[in-house]
Amino acid sequence: MSHAPDPATTPVPTAQRYAMGIEYDGSEFSGWQRLSKHGESDPEGYLTLQSVLEDALSFVAGAPIETICAGRTDAGVHAAGQVVHFDSPVVRDPRGWVLGTTSKLPPAMGALWCVPVTDEFHARFSARARRYRYSILNRTIRPALNRHVLTWERRRLDTDAMHRAAQALLGENDFSAFRTVHCQAPHARRELQDIRVSRDGDVVTVEVQANAFLHHMVRNIVGSLLVVGRGDAPEGWIAELLAGRDRTKAGPTAPSSGLVFLGPRYPAEVVERFGLPAHIRL
Amino acid sequence: MSHAPDPATTPVPTAQRYAMGIEYDGSEFSGWQRLSKHGESDPEGYLTLQSVLEDALSFVAGAPIETICAGRTDAGVHAAGQVVHFDSPVVRDPRGWVLGTTSKLPPAMGALWCVPVTDEFHARFSARARRYRYSILNRTIRPALNRHVLTWERRRLDTDAMHRAAQALLGENDFSAFRTVHCQAPHARRELQDIRVSRDGDVVTVEVQANAFLHHMVRNIVGSLLVVGRGDAPEGWIAELLAGRDRTKAGPTAPSSGLVFLGPRYPAEVVERFGLPAHIRL
Repeated sequence: MSHAPDPATTPVPTAQRYAMGIEYDGSEFSGWQRLSKHGESDPEGYLTLQSVLEDALSFVAGAPIETICAGRTDAGVHAAGQVVHFDSPVVRDPRGWVLGTTSKLPPAMGALWCVPVTDEFHARFSARARRYRYSILNRTIRPALNRHVLTWERRRLDTDAMHRAAQALLGENDFSAFRTVHCQAPHARRELQDIRVSRDGDVVTVEVQANAFLHHMVRNIVGSLLVVGRGDAPEGWIAELLAGRDRTKAGPTAPSSGLVFLGPRYPAEVVERFGLPAHIRL
Repeated sequence: MSHAPDPATTPVPTAQRYAMGIEYDGSEFSGWQRLSKHGESDPEGYLTLQSVLEDALSFVAGAPIETICAGRTDAGVHAAGQVVHFDSPVVRDPRGWVLGTTSKLPPAMGALWCVPVTDEFHARFSARARRYRYSILNRTIRPALNRHVLTWERRRLDTDAMHRAAQALLGENDFSAFRTVHCQAPHARRELQDIRVSRDGDVVTVEVQANAFLHHMVRNIVGSLLVVGRGDAPEGWIAELLAGRDRTKAGPTAPSSGLVFLGPRYPAEVVERFGLPAHIRL
């Protein structure tokens, strides 16, 4: 038996912390969070975005790398602007991280940018907001083209009613009505900063921003807005659900395929201090 | 040995001709045109959109159905609005054709609408124009999300220069410079009715309409516009290529994944006479 230190569990000396932007098509992944110990493969039949990314980063670093993300996404959910941070024992230039990592990632995932930061930056705790977009193809026939990034509603949706109803969610509220029973957050108070429902031809889009989200919160909000959009509940029902704080009263969880994590938003002083991309500024 | 007539080759009595709108993600198909006799499977390792559609229609009809499409697309090319016509020995209502056919199609393909017509309607010969959209992700990192419907150009494209250069193609011209050597059309004269190049963030779009297209004509035009967009040829080069009629001088064929057949356009009197969807009116 070898007594060499296990590279997956031995702390590595930190030379540099980096922030990195990530895009992915979550269709064929079992969600963000790795289901194995660092340095080990996901269990058979599972493939997580975190393990795939950490394998690629570890290859570039020549050392085991662990990541913290701004928002863990569920199985089948996509990201246009996920942000992670990681500590590396080696220093590489940002372009090297981006190109090297992307070259080791599967086609469904890519690194978009990389910026050196200090340990005062934390992908999750430094974020002041997260933004999601949910897209619904609203026509009688299921989507074929772009089916991986849409969900389907065959009944005609009243998007104006959905938009008006959704405004009741704005502000700091207890979102217990829209959290899954599996949600492990210690409390359900979140500040919903923006929500808008719009239509472009057959595609209905819900964009929503909050300081943070509970587990399944976006998909549960969309699921209830769909009930209103179909005319099966009045606009005021959303406000009632929120006030009632009872998950069993709300609409079903909308499917994962329509959901894209647009990404976190950080305070202006953080973005400016580290020279992070302007689009992630709150 | 059976002497029963072969249903794949015996003409069926025509009770009704139908026009049908079709959508597909061409990523995993070997193009539109079937590579086998009607009623037989595509050769091993190939799967064509036509054979898959005809199998579904034949199931709904309970009889072999053959289709004629408005524009045959190559392997990997998508369609948002392909149009076919077919003659059926049985009459079904349009909703039955659409839902029944779609239920027998793979997820990457769907029937959008169906309208009874007469044999004066021909999906290909009645069309006066075809419209295509080509989408390019213009950034340093390859696409991950939506990668099936984009191609990738890492060098910054000057879309204004591309748009101005493209206007030289308008009108009735000999497009020999932009046809593949495998093109079997008897002559290369086509009327280019509209071409526009635009940018929305990182996505550059080329939309083009002509009375008809030569084989690979859109992808060859885009391939040459990319040369101009990168600054490797002056804007006037497109006009020079057109005038020279020499395929070997033009840019490379752009990849199939970025190309979507938006669909054919029919004369107003045809659309009105048969009650076809308004968006396919020229």
